[in-house]
Amino acid sequence: MILAGIDKYDLLSDLAKRRGFFWPSFEIYGGVSGYLDLGPLGARMRRRIEDSWLKLFVYQHGFPMISSPVITPEKVFAASGHLEHFKDLMVTCKDCNRHFKADHVISEAMPARTDIATEAMSPAEIDSFIAENTIRCPVCGGPLTQAEYFSTMFKTNIGPYSDVSGYARPEAAQGMFLDFKRVYESSRERLPLGIAQVGTVMRNEISPRQGPIRLREFTIMELEFFFDPEEPRCDYMDRVKDVELPLLLVRDRARGRSDLTKVQANEASEQGLVKAEWMTYFMALSVKFANSLGIPSEKQRFEEKLAAERSHYSAQTFDHQVWLDRWGWVEIAGHAYRTDFDLNAHIKGSRVDLSVFKPHPTTVERQATVVVPIDSVLGPALRQKAGVVLKALKAVNPEDLKSAFEKSGFFEIQGFKVLPSHVRFEDRTIRETGRRVVPHVVEPSYGAERIVYSTLEYAYTRVKDRVVLKIPYEFVPLQIMVFPLMTKDGLPEVATKVAEYLVEHQFSVEYDDSGAIGRRYARADEIGVPLSITVDYQSLSDDTVTVRDRDSWQQVRVKWKQIPSTVPTFLQGALPFSKLGEPVQTLYE
Amino acid sequence: MILAGIDKYDLLSDLAKRRGFFWPSFEIYGGVSGYLDLGPLGARMRRRIEDSWLKLFVYQHGFPMISSPVITPEKVFAASGHLEHFKDLMVTCKDCNRHFKADHVISEAMPARTDIATEAMSPAEIDSFIAENTIRCPVCGGPLTQAEYFSTMFKTNIGPYSDVSGYARPEAAQGMFLDFKRVYESSRERLPLGIAQVGTVMRNEISPRQGPIRLREFTIMELEFFFDPEEPRCDYMDRVKDVELPLLLVRDRARGRSDLTKVQANEASEQGLVKAEWMTYFMALSVKFANSLGIPSEKQRFEEKLAAERSHYSAQTFDHQVWLDRWGWVEIAGHAYRTDFDLNAHIKGSRVDLSVFKPHPTTVERQATVVVPIDSVLGPALRQKAGVVLKALKAVNPEDLKSAFEKSGFFEIQGFKVLPSHVRFEDRTIRETGRRVVPHVVEPSYGAERIVYSTLEYAYTRVKDRVVLKIPYEFVPLQIMVFPLMTKDGLPEVATKVAEYLVEHQFSVEYDDSGAIGRRYARADEIGVPLSITVDYQSLSDDTVTVRDRDSWQQVRVKWKQIPSTVPTFLQGALPFSKLGEPVQTLYE
Repeated sequence: MILAGIDKYDLLSDLAKRRGFFWPSFEIYGGVSGYLDLGPLGARMRRRIEDSWLKLFVYQHGFPMISSPVITPEKVFAASGHLEHFKDLMVTCKDCNRHFKADHVISEAMPARTDIATEAMSPAEIDSFIAENTIRCPVCGGPLTQAEYFSTMFKTNIGPYSDVSGYARPEAAQGMFLDFKRVYESSRERLPLGIAQVGTVMRNEISPRQGPIRLREFTIMELEFFFDPEEPRCDYMDRVKDVELPLLLVRDRARGRSDLTKVQANEASEQGLVKAEWMTYFMALSVKFANSLGIPSEKQRFEEKLAAERSHYSAQTFDHQVWLDRWGWVEIAGHAYRTDFDLNAHIKGSRVDLSVFKPHPTTVERQATVVVPIDSVLGPALRQKAGVVLKALKAVNPEDLKSAFEKSGFFEIQGFKVLPSHVRFEDRTIRETGRRVVPHVVEPSYGAERIVYSTLEYAYTRVKDRVVLKIPYEFVPLQIMVFPLMTKDGLPEVATKVAEYLVEHQFSVEYDDSGAIGRRYARADEIGVPLSITVDYQSLSDDTVTVRDRDSWQQVRVKWKQIPSTVPTFLQGALPFSKLGEPVQTLYE
Repeated sequence: MILAGIDKYDLLSDLAKRRGFFWPSFEIYGGVSGYLDLGPLGARMRRRIEDSWLKLFVYQHGFPMISSPVITPEKVFAASGHLEHFKDLMVTCKDCNRHFKADHVISEAMPARTDIATEAMSPAEIDSFIAENTIRCPVCGGPLTQAEYFSTMFKTNIGPYSDVSGYARPEAAQGMFLDFKRVYESSRERLPLGIAQVGTVMRNEISPRQGPIRLREFTIMELEFFFDPEEPRCDYMDRVKDVELPLLLVRDRARGRSDLTKVQANEASEQGLVKAEWMTYFMALSVKFANSLGIPSEKQRFEEKLAAERSHYSAQTFDHQVWLDRWGWVEIAGHAYRTDFDLNAHIKGSRVDLSVFKPHPTTVERQATVVVPIDSVLGPALRQKAGVVLKALKAVNPEDLKSAFEKSGFFEIQGFKVLPSHVRFEDRTIRETGRRVVPHVVEPSYGAERIVYSTLEYAYTRVKDRVVLKIPYEFVPLQIMVFPLMTKDGLPEVATKVAEYLVEHQFSVEYDDSGAIGRRYARADEIGVPLSITVDYQSLSDDTVTVRDRDSWQQVRVKWKQIPSTVPTFLQGALPFSKLGEPVQTLYE
């Protein structure tokens, strides 16, 4: 750090505002915390990060991607458990009326107490902990109220007069669960099957005060990977066998320790540390992804969440964390083993069968009770709902039906009440040609804006009193700057032509003729542009330009028409800068 | 059309569900109208459409793009006028309680009355029109209530206990207006300046019943183009001078006519038909964009909106419409001349100066009244707000200040009340080195999902009783299918290797070994895959494969390692299919 009290977050925030990476939303109206705008450089960078994530996690496996709405009707989140579980404990200052996330107040007041799992505390535990340790309002020092729950989903109404309550999705996952059957069918009915989505999610955080790290609205990049739990082997394990996973395990956290267990990816599941081999695979990909962003392995770890810290749907969760200057270990991805929790929840909630059929090698016979609809009674009662109800009856577990009859006298399917008089139960010999499977799911899930920020922090470098953003080439918002050396003698015209030529060849390019050339190079460094092209007087006679390297400040001279044939290879890291042209003496750094 | 009563929408919807382009959201819960999921093919297609739009409207001009939140605090929409104006007239059936957009009820009941501007009717006009023509509920035939306004913005609360009311944005534009100054500054303070955004918007439609055409949530692709009204010439007009604009003008609509005025792009503004030359330019680009999607020019028109139909911010609006089989003329883009309306609204709402400084060629002297803060009084009162208030005072019009003092005794800046005792007014000789300009704005705005649908409808073709989706190559979700001829003798292994090789080379590829080869070709045609590669027995000995053309059903044979060097050129339309390899006899179509 350069100055006492100023960390990389301060330095980057200033640069980000000035140069156009990001800034607080609604700034001219004083802002609203938890919202961030991406400027010209940040928005392009995020799109590159999305593309790269899609390539690594989705396209290379041939997985499909879908897009589903942000606003979701209440019944979906009632079934998925979010309505009940997606909430935070909040305390409010009795003096200044500010609201705070209860666990944040505690961990900020007592940073040394890493042994307490504040996220897992009950309201009563929070209250007594606050009382015992006389914790007060972190802003004004006033006394705090008792802890109470606040739903962190944004609520709204769909249509006029509150016809349907809706919530903004806090994760994209439910879209993939609801669509699982359709995607499975259009993907030729094979398991395993990954379904991805990149899109907006919203979380109504109580009091977000961490800039780009805790946002009320962000872009999620999420993959739900469905597999048959009886066939749990991952086909791609050899692609990541060289990756080492730095695990902070529950067994160590529970003893108040924070030492990492380092294990080769292909051994993590064999040793029982990660409960699903596919989860191990995606965690290993996650390390590679973070490496590609410029985050070294030693600044990464996977924190296994304690049972009480995990989301309601998860049997095991690892947070992929990276080290950031201001906030310490920050989650950039969550890896959750969601099992069959969500599909089962929606089978129950919608009465639609979301299981898939897996044929046996040979047919099996067994005795079973089956539900037989009594058409003469049921038919007239059903009318247009016949298709839905008869299909649901076929899939229902006879035991569930019996117990519903005992409990309430009927069994409801999409508003229709099936009565005991509508069906009979028969014991039959069933010839099974296969079995129905509710797939298990592992989920890697990423927040794109945090990744933009983390990438920038690791790119932030000082060279000779100048800031150089050494963003990996794959993620730079701009690949090439084009400068005329002077704004006269026809140089701007040629430089404009060069810039347009490069835009046509799909490079992301900016033309700049303002100020001295040295200042323009400095600006290019500060926003991380890998190559700067200068059109000078020699250009007019021989169609060459100088090309300057962000990272070495060296320059070469090359015919500008050749750039499209060599620079893509350089940007892929497969050609050293010196091979781009003839070396020239550097007049300006 | 093939069958009576079935239109292209029905045919496409069925195909879209089966093959994975799109389907109703929340389907297993019975659905909620106005929401659509994009499946694997639709989601990739939308991303390609976004990329292509960005290339044509944004990147080629070097315009920046930003990203701002969906949820927006109330004060922004209060200032922009949306709170007051973004609403629809609704009628409700007294019998079945269904809600309807009032103008839809009328235009559906009286389709022949193209002379009435239903969108522009007042509640009283709607009521008397409904009464006079005894229009009743279109679903159950019941009587209708009086018309009343319904806000079509989704409302929610940001943070606990309704701290801040927020609305989901119905357009992305306000994000660009709020960020204008920051982007202007980070783009080296030059006009003209285009700022683009691609993102989610939401409109709480009263009763959407048009599948993919009227959605409550969709992806907007929007460009706000800022220019100095005193320098209105468009620099790129020669790029579109060959484009003809088919205009349906207000002057003709007002006379109940629907004939088109066809005019060359470069003449539309010269003749005064389109009020801003930059708007003409973007309308011409819009024609090119629709052409590239496969929509011929004769199926396009620009409908100029009547004053009463226009949004509150627009001085002139053209809807870019394309002809669709079920719905007739449907808007895929809006071109609005927003003038300085929005920036002025936010200058007034936020008290932040959003004008830009344009230097005069030479300095000008003039007499003027200026506002001088009296530091000794104002300073102690201000404390930490000093910076904001003093800056705002500098920018304020002295006349506005005087009239505020007269009216209310104070002038409020971000909660601080400036009193008459805080300032004095002085007449001075001002040396003006330039002038402050509030830029004017033209806006082209696109709905991505409608464009996905329109593209599919124009791609829908029947050849020999088979459906072929002739999606233009640039927009296909999948570029190449890879098939093993048989699922034995090592063919699947080679085909898998070929598929992986093509994925590595950035093609979008799917491997398929299910069913007979003829059926696989048919499926490839039905989802619009341009090229199908088959690995056969000859492949095992000479590393060649057959390549089949979606559009001609012809085949060539080629070494599969050569595909990455030739197929991109074919997909760009710069190489005919026959040049991809040696012609072979076609065994299966």
